[in-house]
Amino acid sequence: MADTDYDLVIMGSGPAGLTAGLYAARARMKVAIYEKSLPGGQVLTTDWIENYPGFPEGISGTELTQRMTDQVRHFGLDIQSDEVLSADLSGGVKEIQLSEKTVRTHSLIIATGASPRKLGIPGEDRFFGKGISSCATCDGPFCRDKVVAAVGGGDTAVQESVYLTRFAKKVYLIHRRDEFRAEKILQERAMASDKIEILLDTVVTGVNGLTHLESIHTRNLKSGENAKLAVDAFFVWIGILPNTEFLGDAAEPERDEYGFIRTNERMETSVPGVFAVGDVRSTPLRQITTAVGDAAIAAASAEHYVVNL
Amino acid sequence: MADTDYDLVIMGSGPAGLTAGLYAARARMKVAIYEKSLPGGQVLTTDWIENYPGFPEGISGTELTQRMTDQVRHFGLDIQSDEVLSADLSGGVKEIQLSEKTVRTHSLIIATGASPRKLGIPGEDRFFGKGISSCATCDGPFCRDKVVAAVGGGDTAVQESVYLTRFAKKVYLIHRRDEFRAEKILQERAMASDKIEILLDTVVTGVNGLTHLESIHTRNLKSGENAKLAVDAFFVWIGILPNTEFLGDAAEPERDEYGFIRTNERMETSVPGVFAVGDVRSTPLRQITTAVGDAAIAAASAEHYVVNL
Repeated sequence: MADTDYDLVIMGSGPAGLTAGLYAARARMKVAIYEKSLPGGQVLTTDWIENYPGFPEGISGTELTQRMTDQVRHFGLDIQSDEVLSADLSGGVKEIQLSEKTVRTHSLIIATGASPRKLGIPGEDRFFGKGISSCATCDGPFCRDKVVAAVGGGDTAVQESVYLTRFAKKVYLIHRRDEFRAEKILQERAMASDKIEILLDTVVTGVNGLTHLESIHTRNLKSGENAKLAVDAFFVWIGILPNTEFLGDAAEPERDEYGFIRTNERMETSVPGVFAVGDVRSTPLRQITTAVGDAAIAAASAEHYVVNL
Repeated sequence: MADTDYDLVIMGSGPAGLTAGLYAARARMKVAIYEKSLPGGQVLTTDWIENYPGFPEGISGTELTQRMTDQVRHFGLDIQSDEVLSADLSGGVKEIQLSEKTVRTHSLIIATGASPRKLGIPGEDRFFGKGISSCATCDGPFCRDKVVAAVGGGDTAVQESVYLTRFAKKVYLIHRRDEFRAEKILQERAMASDKIEILLDTVVTGVNGLTHLESIHTRNLKSGENAKLAVDAFFVWIGILPNTEFLGDAAEPERDEYGFIRTNERMETSVPGVFAVGDVRSTPLRQITTAVGDAAIAAASAEHYVVNL
C-alpha cells in the first residue's frame, strides 16, 4: 500500500462529517477532519431542533454541535481548522490541497454540505435560523396558528407552502414573476387553499424585528407599491447550492443536474475511494438524521475500501 | 380518498419506528405505532452506545429509548402495545390485522427490525448486550487490550474477527465445522494475524460470569474434549433474521436472498404505499444512525404518497 498521511480525510464538520469522524476514529482509522469555518455546518445556524431523535424537549444547534464535537474528541480525533482549496482525486492516493500544505490520503469523505440561496436583503443574515428558515419539515411545526410568508416560484416553494397550512393560520406565498415555475398540480393545491394568499410580481426587500422576526417589506414590481406584512416566520425557497467549490469544473465525481454528488447506497461516488454524505449528496431528503445515517455507511465503506487496498 | 383509520401505520418502535413516528406526528399525519413487546427494539438490549451522535460520554440503550419515546409522545403520538398478526397490502387501502381488531391505513412503514440468530446455550440471554454482542462496529472499541471470542464461519464472522484485532489483544475465532464458509481472502487475513487463534470443529456450550462475562465453555466435536476460555467479550456471528413473520409467504413486498425487504433510496418497497426502514431493510449497514436516517426519509415519502392519493 502506498505511503500516505491518512487512511481517510473528511471534509466538513457538520453532523455528517462529525459522524463519519466518530465511526472512523472508533474503527482506529488514521483520519483527519478539515473544517473551513466552525464545526456544526448549517446546524450551527439553527436555533432549535425538534426532530433529531434523543432530545425530547429539542436542542439548540450550538449545543448539539458541541455534543457531537465532544464525542469525536473523546475518541482522540480533533477537528482541524483549514480549508480544502482543491483535490486531485485522479490517482489511487488522493492529494488534498489545504491553505498551506498538501495531505495525501487513501480515501475521502465529502461532507461539505449545501447552502440555501439567500435573497441578499437587509435583516436576512440576522434572522436566519431565528425566524427565517429554508426547511418546512424542520420549522413548520413551530408555526402553529401563526402568520408566515414564503418566497419562491418552484416546486419546493409551492409544495412546502401548502404543507405549512397544516400549522400556520395564514401563508403569504410571494413570487417575483407573474407565474410559478412549479408543477401545475402543486399550483392548483396552493390556489385551492383558503389559508394561502399568493402575491405575484412581488419581491421581499427587507426583514424586520426587534428580538425576533416581526415583519417583512415587499414591493410590487408592476405597481411599484411597497407594503409591510406582519409575519412570525419567513421561508426562503429560492434554491440550494452544494458546497463543491473545491472540485472546480472537474468531471468527477459525477454530479446530478443541480450539482449534488451522486452516490450509490454505499455512499460510493464515481471515483473509487471517494464518498459523499449529507447535504452535498444527491439525496431525497436533507436532515440531521439522514446526514448521520449516510456518514455511518460512508465510514464503513471507506474502512472496507482501505482494508482491501 | 377512501376512508381509513390512519394515514400511516408504523410497525415497530425501535429507533427506526420512533423516528418515523416523530416525523409523521410533526407533519400532523394521522399515525399509529404498534409494538408487540417493549419500545426500543434491539437497542433495549444494548448496554452502552457510543456511536449515536449527540451523547459524548455514550448512553445506555434504555435511556436512549426512553428519550426517543418521550420525544414522540411530546408530539401527541403514543406507542400502542399490540401485535401485527398479518397485513393485507394488496389494495389501495392496507388492512392491518392486530390481535383483536383490524385497522385500515393508506400507508405503512415496516420497522420491525431483525434478530441476531442465537446459539441457544446457557447464559446467552443473560449476557446478551452485556458482554455478548453481534456488532463489532458497535462494541469492538470497548475491547481495547482484552481477550475476546467470536463464533461463526461466514464472511461476517471472519472479517469482523480481523477487525476486532484492532482493539483486542487476542481473538479466539470458533467454528463448528472443519473449514470456514467465508471468502478465501478473508480467511487468509484471519490466518495471517498473530492475534487470532482459530478453533475449528468446536462449539460453544455455555457462557459464564458473575456480574459480567468471564468465560465461555467449548467442546471439540472431533476429540470430545471440553475447555474453558477466559474471555471479556463474546461475539456471535451465526446470522441475522429479518422480523417479517407477519408477511407469511407473501411474494410482496419484494425481499432479498436473506429475506430483508428491498427498497429504493426513498424507502419505497415494491408495494405502493409500503415503506421499509432500519434493520428489516436490505441495507449495507445496520446502526441506530442508519435507522433514524431511513425513517426520516420514509416518513417524508409516506407523507408525499398520502397527499398525492
